Formats: sequence, C-alpha cells, structure tokens
Amino acid sequence: MSRSVILLSGGMDSATVLAIARTHGADCFALSFDYGQRHGVELEAARVVAGALGATEHRVLKIDLGALGGSALTDTDIDVPEQPGEGIPVTYVPARNTVFLSFALAWAEILDAGAIYAGVNAVDYSGYPDCRPEYIEAYQVMANLATRRGTEGSPIAIRTPLIELTKADIILRGKELGVDYSMTVSCYQADEQGRACGRCDACRLRRAGFEAAGVEDSTHYQPGST
Amino acid sequence: MSRSVILLSGGMDSATVLAIARTHGADCFALSFDYGQRHGVELEAARVVAGALGATEHRVLKIDLGALGGSALTDTDIDVPEQPGEGIPVTYVPARNTVFLSFALAWAEILDAGAIYAGVNAVDYSGYPDCRPEYIEAYQVMANLATRRGTEGSPIAIRTPLIELTKADIILRGKELGVDYSMTVSCYQADEQGRACGRCDACRLRRAGFEAAGVEDSTHYQPGST
Repeated sequence: MSRSVILLSGGMDSATVLAIARTHGADCFALSFDYGQRHGVELEAARVVAGALGATEHRVLKIDLGALGGSALTDTDIDVPEQPGEGIPVTYVPARNTVFLSFALAWAEILDAGAIYAGVNAVDYSGYPDCRPEYIEAYQVMANLATRRGTEGSPIAIRTPLIELTKADIILRGKELGVDYSMTVSCYQADEQGRACGRCDACRLRRAGFEAAGVEDSTHYQPGST
Repeated sequence: MSRSVILLSGGMDSATVLAIARTHGADCFALSFDYGQRHGVELEAARVVAGALGATEHRVLKIDLGALGGSALTDTDIDVPEQPGEGIPVTYVPARNTVFLSFALAWAEILDAGAIYAGVNAVDYSGYPDCRPEYIEAYQVMANLATRRGTEGSPIAIRTPLIELTKADIILRGKELGVDYSMTVSCYQADEQGRACGRCDACRLRRAGFEAAGVEDSTHYQPGST
C-alpha cells in the first residue's frame, strides 16, 4: 500500500480528502498544525476525524506562524469579519498553504510517501492566492526539484481532489464515502466545545453548502446562534 | 528604504548575504529557526551577526522540523559523518530550504517586503536538491502565485547572491564588506561555546575555503581539534 501525507485541519474539506485518499488505497499519514489559530478545537476535531477515517498516524506539528502576525485567524488584534468583503480577506494567513505543503513535503520525503493530499479549494476561497490551480501546479514543479524523490524520477504528487468542487459537491462526495461531518469544525470562532457561531464566513459557506446539497446540516451550533 | 527578509543561520554564508543585502540598501529583517538542530549555538551566533551587521530586527521561530526526523542534523540516532559520501548526504534535512523559504515568504508578505535573501549555495552543497539554481527559479514562480504581492504585480524577489560562488569567493566578498567570520558557526557538532570540531564536512569546507581565499582562518576550534 502506497503512503500518502494528508493535510488535515479538522474542517469538512480535509476530512473529505482523507476519505478520498483512503478510497485510493493509500496508507494515510495525517498532518495537522498548531499554529496559533484562534480555534484550537479544530485540532481535537482533526484527531477524531483521523481516527474515524482510518489514518495510520496523526501528527500535530507546533509552528510559530502566529508569531509573525498578519491575519485575523492568528492575530487577536484583527477582528474576524461577519460579512464577506472585497479582495483578499483578512482571514487569509500569508503563505499558509505554502508553509503547510512544505512541512507535508518534508514528511513525505522522510516517509518515502508518493503523494500529498490537500483540501485546497478554488471555488469558495477565490480570494486566497494560494488556493488556485495555477499555484498548486507551480508548487508541484518546485517540489519535484526540491526533493530526493523528485530528482530520482519518482516525484511526490500534490493532489487536490476538491480544487474545482463547490461546497455542495464536496458534501455529496463525503456523504457517499460515509464522512460524518458533525465531527468537523469549520467556524472561525468556535467555542471551547467546538460549537459554531453560525455567523462568520466559514459558517455561512458551510450552511449554504448543506442547503445546496440537500443534506441535513449536522453542525453543532452555539445556543442562540441563528 | 525597501524591506527585505534575510534567512540567517549563524553560519558564514548567511552572514555574507546579510552584509550584501545591507549594501543593496535594504532594511533587513533577519529570520532564524530553532528547528531541533543539534547545534543550538548557531542561534546565538545568528543573534550576534544580526546585531553586528545592522539588521533592523532578528526573529527566531521555533518549528518542530526535528519531530519529523530523517536527518543527521536533527535526529540524534543518525551519526554526523566525518568523511564526504556519495549522493545526497545524511546531513540533508528533507525539504528544509522549502520550509525556511516558506516562512520567509509569510513574513515578507506581512512586512510588505520586496525581497528575500538566502545563502543557498550550489557549489559546496551539490548533493542537496534544494540548493540548485533551478530549484530557486521554480520557488520564485510558485511564490509569485502564492502571495498577495505576486498577484498584484510586484512579486517578492528570491535573491541567492552566493548560489554560484565557491567558499573562497564567499569569504573574499565577506571580507571586502567587513564581515568578521569569527562570529559565525558552521560546524555540525560545535560545542557549547560554539567551538568547531574541525573534522565534520562543514568544518572541512570552511577551512578549505579560508585556505583557497588566502585569508587567515579566524574560526574558534575546540582544544585538541586538528
């Protein structure tokens, strides 16, 4: 069975990606980051998801990305917006996917894994430069040159099976594969029990996705959220 | 004055790069990593170098690269070799430059810096895939797509002024710019005072560089090292 590294955030997208990688027959090594995000409950969600969906191992790396500041997700001086704005959102963490993919690349090389799976999505995150297909293609070219496997002719494939899917498509694919989305946390400001606010961008996208898919929303919301 | 992020390891190459960036008129933000390397004394050397060469700020990020294992520089179960071998050396840390450049990219984006300087060198590190010019070129293409500045038409330039220089060339350039190499630590197994073993690959390269440059070797060696 070939090894794969799966970037696992505790959200819906990466849970779906893990389920997809398992259908590809991969021996899955899930990787999460404790990077100073406001919502540490997502790491607990990632742990539960990794176990439920059959990851061989789940590792959480502590990285000091928050110490650099610059995003509403890691800098408590910036408010999380409750209305979508123009351009690149304040919830964008500079170079986050590049940093995460780079650790995945390091681990893949150590494990001699043939692929990295990431839940990057260009549809709902069109404002994030590092969620576009052309970015992933350029990352692949760079990764081929960066690694031992790449120089030896069996490069590590960067797989982003959700990149062109809508949230509804993702939910339908996940349901088909038996993903229980009540385990996952998307909310930018979930409470300590992992319950969603129902108001932030991530909550709106998630709720709209369930509606569009015609699937019951199993999200745990905070009391009084609408 | 334009801002630049400088990857600073505490070794000779990155000290020289910081001096070069200063001659380019850059306002320099030096970035070092505490990544579980055996030789923590290099971080103290980086601090001294940053101060002596006029960096505006020096930040040390703690990252858990050692937790992934796989290299003699971070994994104490692998011995540091005292003779050069064939192919990719055991001192190669998988995807290390990719990880380091990615944090530099994040910080550059937050600082609105126009350049990243790195002491990557293809001559002495020909066995490391991520020290080759084609790797750096591919990283630049990826970085242009990954960042806000890149998408807005003023990309962050990845500068590797030493990439084609020999160690002797680097030393001569540094001396010209007033770099005091006795502040720097290259040794893979330096002692707690930062004194070099004189025997590892890094020490051999450094000593040969001073000899070829015709410059007195100001390195602090451990008593009894040859």
